[in-house]
Amino acid sequence: MAQLQNQNVMKKKNAYNVAVVGATGAVGTEMLQILEERKFPVNNLVPLASYRSAGGEVSFQDKDYAVNLLQKDSFADVDLALFSAGSEISKEYAPIAVEAGAVVVDNSAAWRMDPKVPLVVPEVNASALHGHKGIIANPNCSTIQMVVALYPLHEAVRIKRIVVTTFQSVSGTGKDAMDELAKQCQQLLSFGDPKPEVYPHHIAFNCLPHIDDFLPTGYTKEEMKMVHETRKIMGDASIQVTATTVRVPVFVSHSEAVNIETEKKMSMNEARAILSMAPGVQVYDDPGRGLYPLPKDVAGTDAVYVGRIREDESIPNGLNLWVVADNLRKGAALNAVQIAEELSR
Amino acid sequence: MAQLQNQNVMKKKNAYNVAVVGATGAVGTEMLQILEERKFPVNNLVPLASYRSAGGEVSFQDKDYAVNLLQKDSFADVDLALFSAGSEISKEYAPIAVEAGAVVVDNSAAWRMDPKVPLVVPEVNASALHGHKGIIANPNCSTIQMVVALYPLHEAVRIKRIVVTTFQSVSGTGKDAMDELAKQCQQLLSFGDPKPEVYPHHIAFNCLPHIDDFLPTGYTKEEMKMVHETRKIMGDASIQVTATTVRVPVFVSHSEAVNIETEKKMSMNEARAILSMAPGVQVYDDPGRGLYPLPKDVAGTDAVYVGRIREDESIPNGLNLWVVADNLRKGAALNAVQIAEELSR
Repeated sequence: MAQLQNQNVMKKKNAYNVAVVGATGAVGTEMLQILEERKFPVNNLVPLASYRSAGGEVSFQDKDYAVNLLQKDSFADVDLALFSAGSEISKEYAPIAVEAGAVVVDNSAAWRMDPKVPLVVPEVNASALHGHKGIIANPNCSTIQMVVALYPLHEAVRIKRIVVTTFQSVSGTGKDAMDELAKQCQQLLSFGDPKPEVYPHHIAFNCLPHIDDFLPTGYTKEEMKMVHETRKIMGDASIQVTATTVRVPVFVSHSEAVNIETEKKMSMNEARAILSMAPGVQVYDDPGRGLYPLPKDVAGTDAVYVGRIREDESIPNGLNLWVVADNLRKGAALNAVQIAEELSR
Repeated sequence: MAQLQNQNVMKKKNAYNVAVVGATGAVGTEMLQILEERKFPVNNLVPLASYRSAGGEVSFQDKDYAVNLLQKDSFADVDLALFSAGSEISKEYAPIAVEAGAVVVDNSAAWRMDPKVPLVVPEVNASALHGHKGIIANPNCSTIQMVVALYPLHEAVRIKRIVVTTFQSVSGTGKDAMDELAKQCQQLLSFGDPKPEVYPHHIAFNCLPHIDDFLPTGYTKEEMKMVHETRKIMGDASIQVTATTVRVPVFVSHSEAVNIETEKKMSMNEARAILSMAPGVQVYDDPGRGLYPLPKDVAGTDAVYVGRIREDESIPNGLNLWVVADNLRKGAALNAVQIAEELSR
């Protein structure tokens, strides 16, 4: 990967030419919206897509932009390329974009575990961006929200082990999956028997313990992302993680039941105090008043919400947390734009 | 509780007079169906209900029975009374039924932790029925399915600690909650904004980390049932349990992500082999072929289904399991009828 030998620092400019690869997808749409909301200094926008979606238009800052077909020469004069079009596209085109002089922030799994590629959640390891080689990887949605919530606790009392169970929304799969959930609900409520298309089984009124492909160990790739990415982002290979990832009939926002074992004891109140001051975290934890994070409330917002903070009485030093975030925003598009903001500083 | 001093053994008969308290509820309806399916020898059926539901009729073995108002004299000549009408009713009327000569199998939380009352899952601790004092408690739905799956593993390698996260269906709350889920889905899909009635927040397209009341520790009573009932049923007060219980938009069947730490090592294949022969368990674990238990498939069936069996690599001796059962059947009505069958042997 000759193109990764050079350090493609994004040159300071008043405004940047920004390509968005996968501009019409669930995450690409959010990327455009968040670039606009956060007033990222965009000079020229270059929305790109594959055969299926190219040819349409997207709207950005009150202007319509044609969505062009992603090609090898798509990255001329591009300073920053945000990729969210799947691993195969990223594997092929991210090096091409870097060769053309762009810095790539890639939302796929293609480059995340490459030792030359920083895997960044700005609240946790923005410093890992120093010395990047042109590609920066955006972590998996379920990992991002977990490390934002756990890193402040890790700094305080060192996390030894994490047992996490996820409740992941269908928007993580894409727009087709959101349509399938709506359609299946309608059909099942009128006594129809819909044929699953996006998922291998019904998702409406069901829970699917199956996200991404299965490995011979019985784990899914999604589960192993939570193991390996957590260690890389938190910069501690000694953290033990075991995960069960489950798709639930929710449109937007992932929820996670997170159990941690720590080296030193931390009380419920200490954890609340630390998380209340942590960057990117909102504590919603007053269960007596019915206050805990809910996927339906969190959708469309930026923070990682933490509630149900409890001391785990089954071990000397443990905590249980309920962590919810918008998987399209903090779990994907927002985190990518935050990385771009760090690069432009 | 003078009435609990006597041992009310159910006298062997060819057929029994059976009262069902809460006969029109979600669990009561299943109780009638399961008594019929399993050909429990019923002589006279006495369906009982509170003011709200008394006066109607229920059908049993092709005959219609009037549902009478539950009163102090309702239990004359009753041999067996199955209660599923909430804790307050059970606290008041179970001793009255025992006084009248009946044996009570109670589905509420009222008597479960009373040291004089056996808490029974027949596959695990049928022997605890010996010497009962007239009331036998049926455990909480989420506990029943977990102990059926875990007890065979506990016998083999001793479970030290359980970390469990539940995905519980709305039928656990009752018929009103099932109606609310259906209605809210319809309304939200047509851009309405329904007002929650049964739950404190929307349940459609949402996950509620709130089942039963909150305690000062931050845990819910539902979570603590899983701690205390598991120890009582498995007969081992040393088992450590920590739980997060969550309501999901599923009509029937509870799912559980269960992580266990054991004294001795057990491989994935050993666990599969032991569970394949365990009473009341069905192993559905061939993920490469898309085979794992799903709440939608399990609804209406009797077994506790176990899949996603994985060695937990975060500790020397650990396993992850995905456990699904019909909460109205094995989680409530079926387990109660199985207890009645044991009593009639």
